[in-house]
Amino acid sequence: MLLPKGFRFSGVPCGIKTQPNTKDISLIVSDVPAVAAGVYTQNQVVAAPVTVCQSKTPSSKLRGVVVNSGNANACTGEQGMTDANRMCQLTAELCEVDESQVLVMSTGVIGQFLPMTKVEQGIQASTECLAEGEDAFLAAADGILTTDKARKIATREVHTEQGTIRIAGIAKGAGMIGPNMATMLCCVVTDADLSEAQAQEMLRTSADLSFNNVSVEGHTSTNDTMLLLANGQAKAGSLANEAEQQFQEALTDLCIQLAKLIPADGEGASHLIEVRVKGSQNDGDARKIATSVASSNLVKTAVYGNDPNWGRIVSAAGYAGPELDHSRLQLKMNGITLFDAGEPIEFDAAAASESIRTNETTEIELVVGSGPGICTHWTSDLTVDYVTFNSEYTT
Amino acid sequence: MLLPKGFRFSGVPCGIKTQPNTKDISLIVSDVPAVAAGVYTQNQVVAAPVTVCQSKTPSSKLRGVVVNSGNANACTGEQGMTDANRMCQLTAELCEVDESQVLVMSTGVIGQFLPMTKVEQGIQASTECLAEGEDAFLAAADGILTTDKARKIATREVHTEQGTIRIAGIAKGAGMIGPNMATMLCCVVTDADLSEAQAQEMLRTSADLSFNNVSVEGHTSTNDTMLLLANGQAKAGSLANEAEQQFQEALTDLCIQLAKLIPADGEGASHLIEVRVKGSQNDGDARKIATSVASSNLVKTAVYGNDPNWGRIVSAAGYAGPELDHSRLQLKMNGITLFDAGEPIEFDAAAASESIRTNETTEIELVVGSGPGICTHWTSDLTVDYVTFNSEYTT
Repeated sequence: MLLPKGFRFSGVPCGIKTQPNTKDISLIVSDVPAVAAGVYTQNQVVAAPVTVCQSKTPSSKLRGVVVNSGNANACTGEQGMTDANRMCQLTAELCEVDESQVLVMSTGVIGQFLPMTKVEQGIQASTECLAEGEDAFLAAADGILTTDKARKIATREVHTEQGTIRIAGIAKGAGMIGPNMATMLCCVVTDADLSEAQAQEMLRTSADLSFNNVSVEGHTSTNDTMLLLANGQAKAGSLANEAEQQFQEALTDLCIQLAKLIPADGEGASHLIEVRVKGSQNDGDARKIATSVASSNLVKTAVYGNDPNWGRIVSAAGYAGPELDHSRLQLKMNGITLFDAGEPIEFDAAAASESIRTNETTEIELVVGSGPGICTHWTSDLTVDYVTFNSEYTT
Repeated sequence: MLLPKGFRFSGVPCGIKTQPNTKDISLIVSDVPAVAAGVYTQNQVVAAPVTVCQSKTPSSKLRGVVVNSGNANACTGEQGMTDANRMCQLTAELCEVDESQVLVMSTGVIGQFLPMTKVEQGIQASTECLAEGEDAFLAAADGILTTDKARKIATREVHTEQGTIRIAGIAKGAGMIGPNMATMLCCVVTDADLSEAQAQEMLRTSADLSFNNVSVEGHTSTNDTMLLLANGQAKAGSLANEAEQQFQEALTDLCIQLAKLIPADGEGASHLIEVRVKGSQNDGDARKIATSVASSNLVKTAVYGNDPNWGRIVSAAGYAGPELDHSRLQLKMNGITLFDAGEPIEFDAAAASESIRTNETTEIELVVGSGPGICTHWTSDLTVDYVTFNSEYTT
């Protein structure tokens, strides 16, 4: 695994999660001050660690990110702020950097105070086993998971004229789920040399094309956080022109890979659904339509039932808001045309159903006009297991 | 049952629905020309009968409404328009009125042409058994149902200084469901004397406080239609001032009664959820917040699981858009306070859960500030049965 230079990682169990020996504290440290940018939840109810990160990014001197899972430190008032700051302060002390150079993320149950004795022991242990390399990186990736069924990692290598840049990301999903009232967290590290403004803009662009286009149930949680740390240790010079473009594409690509893992791994999901909309007047309209289709319980249950139910999809597009060009309206599921030129057409329903049943990803392609607008949105189907999981008594 | 004067009703089976002897054609006829107003789906994909009704309302000379269930006549192109017009034309001919005096509503599967031979036989039969009185009214109410578990009717009597006015309504739900890709239909008849403008405005006002505040899965279907027919046969004079206000209140009250039956009867629903929001800056903001909470699968599964999960509710309010006054944020479920002054509070979780389990309606009350905005929204919980029902192969 080709990881960016100048970063060390760790992940340790400290007992926040009830399952024994499950990693729940992760640490990512840059050997030198790094540029850091963040994209945060749009929910007005914001967890303490998000408030702390918002106040510290963008930055050009970041050194570390400490993360705990199992407790979101959300809806915890002043005590929550004290605890979030304490996590930064202790990490900074142990890593011999300034508190202002450390960010914090939390995920897990909300409305409960962090068990700070355990957290502090965990931070201590995690600083002691910081290391470069794959094992440490995977430990950090595991330490941020909650109800995720699998770890979520991605790496990229970008070959520019001035040298090779590496990018590595870890993420966790999936949905706002109790008892581990989950949240989307993502931390991407790179040895590219970026300015603060560049990092912030590039992260925003990639987030809009990836994490902002995934949904499990449409909840933006109290804790959603996406961070980018760039420490310049690739020594490939400032990114500009073609190299900047290459980096942006790789970053977006990596973020899409991570983002798609979230609905694919959604509790009880049996299909990843990829909704591709094109032909709207602009990308914003395409996003509204894609989101409407992807948020429809009727579309999501139809996919669960392997049902090429074009009526539910066309209807969901119809109430999304943006104008549709009916004469050009076309729908394909897994490449099979179900609706064309504004009318349903004859198709082999059994073959379409079999295609849904046998593919992990269900592709829904909707042409809504002849405009330049496009958007791809990923979600999961709605299954009996989803309802069972989410209706378990958790409060 | 106290029905408005001057209306006759019927409901007959004609074989559109596959179940034998199930009523699927209904007819409502006013003895004299009536004022008619309509409120229609906001979906851009609009079924043929909706297009026909839109072109004929408001009106001051309406005589009849013909309705079929089992087939929505939606996504059926020009043939669909021909069929919808033919239904009006045949009804008019048999009732000896003009085609322009007849409206049409359809509900059921979409994308299939109406079986017009059956429909025409049904219209013939239904005109032959038109009658006043309860039996005929109930037959009409039954003839518009699709997957509804129970008929949906309501009546009101308004005593004004100038006389007694009666209002009667029939409705059907629930959600966009295959194989009977359902839709919300409602027809309210009254013997009040209303002007066209008055009827339209009053219907709009009542719809906004009732049917526009119910959701099962947020789909506005291709066929949603709500009609009001007022034939003046109460001979209670034009409605103005206090009488107008009395009538408006009764109409809203009747519409709320009908509207609440839709989520209560939603496929697989085990609870009706009533979300009451107050304290926002205006009613529009309250509606956004109530809709956000009511549309959350996590809130809906929590209610199914009898889980007083305040975190999911507060979070759904937080991402609704309108600003929340955190210091005043308060949440009650079934009268039990779970969150107050922006913080979770201690409560008897077992008692709260038991209260959800033992009440058919779960009341969620959210105070979001000190403004005058209010909204009440009704929805159903999200259950295993819902997913099972909606994932059955239907295309």
